[in-house]
Amino acid sequence: MNIDMIEAAAARLSGHIRRTPLLSSPFLDDLAGRRVLVKAECLQHTGSFKARGGWSAVSALDEATRKRGVIAFSSGNHAQGVAYAARQHGTSAVIIMPADAPALKINNTRDLGAEVVLYDRANEDRDEIGARLASERGLTLIKPFDEPQVIAGQATCGLEIVEQAAEIGVDKADVIVCCGGGGLTSGIALALEAKAPGLRVRPAEPEGFDDVARSLASGRIERNAVTSGGLCDAIITPHPGQITFPIMQRLCGPGLVVRDDQVKRAMVQAFLRLKLVAEPGGAAALAAALFLGDQIDTDTVIVTISGGNVDPALFAEVLTTHAG
Amino acid sequence: MNIDMIEAAAARLSGHIRRTPLLSSPFLDDLAGRRVLVKAECLQHTGSFKARGGWSAVSALDEATRKRGVIAFSSGNHAQGVAYAARQHGTSAVIIMPADAPALKINNTRDLGAEVVLYDRANEDRDEIGARLASERGLTLIKPFDEPQVIAGQATCGLEIVEQAAEIGVDKADVIVCCGGGGLTSGIALALEAKAPGLRVRPAEPEGFDDVARSLASGRIERNAVTSGGLCDAIITPHPGQITFPIMQRLCGPGLVVRDDQVKRAMVQAFLRLKLVAEPGGAAALAAALFLGDQIDTDTVIVTISGGNVDPALFAEVLTTHAG
Repeated sequence: MNIDMIEAAAARLSGHIRRTPLLSSPFLDDLAGRRVLVKAECLQHTGSFKARGGWSAVSALDEATRKRGVIAFSSGNHAQGVAYAARQHGTSAVIIMPADAPALKINNTRDLGAEVVLYDRANEDRDEIGARLASERGLTLIKPFDEPQVIAGQATCGLEIVEQAAEIGVDKADVIVCCGGGGLTSGIALALEAKAPGLRVRPAEPEGFDDVARSLASGRIERNAVTSGGLCDAIITPHPGQITFPIMQRLCGPGLVVRDDQVKRAMVQAFLRLKLVAEPGGAAALAAALFLGDQIDTDTVIVTISGGNVDPALFAEVLTTHAG
Repeated sequence: MNIDMIEAAAARLSGHIRRTPLLSSPFLDDLAGRRVLVKAECLQHTGSFKARGGWSAVSALDEATRKRGVIAFSSGNHAQGVAYAARQHGTSAVIIMPADAPALKINNTRDLGAEVVLYDRANEDRDEIGARLASERGLTLIKPFDEPQVIAGQATCGLEIVEQAAEIGVDKADVIVCCGGGGLTSGIALALEAKAPGLRVRPAEPEGFDDVARSLASGRIERNAVTSGGLCDAIITPHPGQITFPIMQRLCGPGLVVRDDQVKRAMVQAFLRLKLVAEPGGAAALAAALFLGDQIDTDTVIVTISGGNVDPALFAEVLTTHAG
């Protein structure tokens, strides 16, 4: 993994992936007590940053391999990213999804032309299922985060952050990233290391699923006790990746761990102040910026809203219970 | 009103007003039966395009006049636009708002530093109140739409549409604009006339408040029977403006009139497919694109989502009742 690989991914993505805006609101600044800049990856194709990694990985395959099709396992955002990239490249995608993934994500993945295979998140190993199907059908497995071309794709979000921060004269800030397996987090960290060393990544995770924060603290890969049932479905993974963890260990500041009620209040703030739909896992970084200010010491924070694929009923419930 | 005045406004707005993205989704294309491009003005500062006109008008005043302060009357979006522009220019703003405006809009206007004066929309004449206060305090009245510098500011949204359409090779399309008094509609129409004559504006209004559509059909200014109580508060005005109507008459295609349930379904689609929060009045154009396809005959339509300032309770109700 190096910056050349990231810039090569950026070249492949150019014209196909959106340069999402970096937004702000004086109301968020007041609430956080510092300047808050929001990288709106929920506005990316497929509603999350995962379209970057999907496009990067699919576009990096040689043509014969790509023609045989791809396979991915995902709670929903990587699913849509890979399905979208496969369709746009004229090939097929099989997506293995947990049966308890949000209905919106399952439906969208099917509507993007992929074959969806559901599995039981608590009792089945998605890695094993993915490897078996890949081998049976000659498909190329595109892992959700522990895969260099996927990380290089997510890292293009970091290249944009570098440019957008420079445009407004920001050269020192914590960059808080919603973190599951660490693909986006490590990718952005690599881009910042090369291009904007005054910007430092910090992962944000939900309470109870803070494997990355604990791993960064202990210096070795820690696992979550459970891997299902959380609000922030998009960023619940068993443990940080073998590739992503050493990158995060080398480049990231301490992890930030937010409660579900803080995530919901951040979703409301994104709705009120930015007019953005953030899914729970996509609002963790904003929640950290708004409600964990005593753990941050830069005047400016940049946060990702990494996705917006949330079921209407859940979003309505969050607005009803947490907007007061 | 001419293109030079619009380009001068664009120069004054540069660096202060966001170039909002032009978004799309294959799901919206499928639903509409044609390509749909969405100009996301809900992502503008203050949550609506009105920040453009407010900035244009405040920045066009000479310094002595600006120092005495400005006054505006508005159901809420113009209020925030003028309050924001005044604060950023270091001057004061008095805003006259209907007492039944959404609470979010009233609160935001106050939080942006303006003095808010409430009036009864059904029984009081906001023009009269505005003129009196302006005269008593030496304030400059910034009308919501029938004011050349305001129109020039809104027109900068049209300049961006021209550029963004050209970037993706679109040179022929209906441009459907959410329409109240016609400031945004006439402004965009002027920009397109000068820069992209293959793009034609069509106003979108809610049923029962279709004064512009009827005025375009009859050739003279028609009034709405009532001017309060509608879902689409942002675009309910008594009648098109003396300045805006002749521009619309010369340049716009026939008006499109949408039902409230279509507006709500469009709000759900913006939520699901674009991850955008659209207020009712900001979703009228998208509703027309999605549900009045038989009145449109271009392969591509461009629509504004002109604002996103909607109370959480209403948005939750819309998601709950219209997402099925």
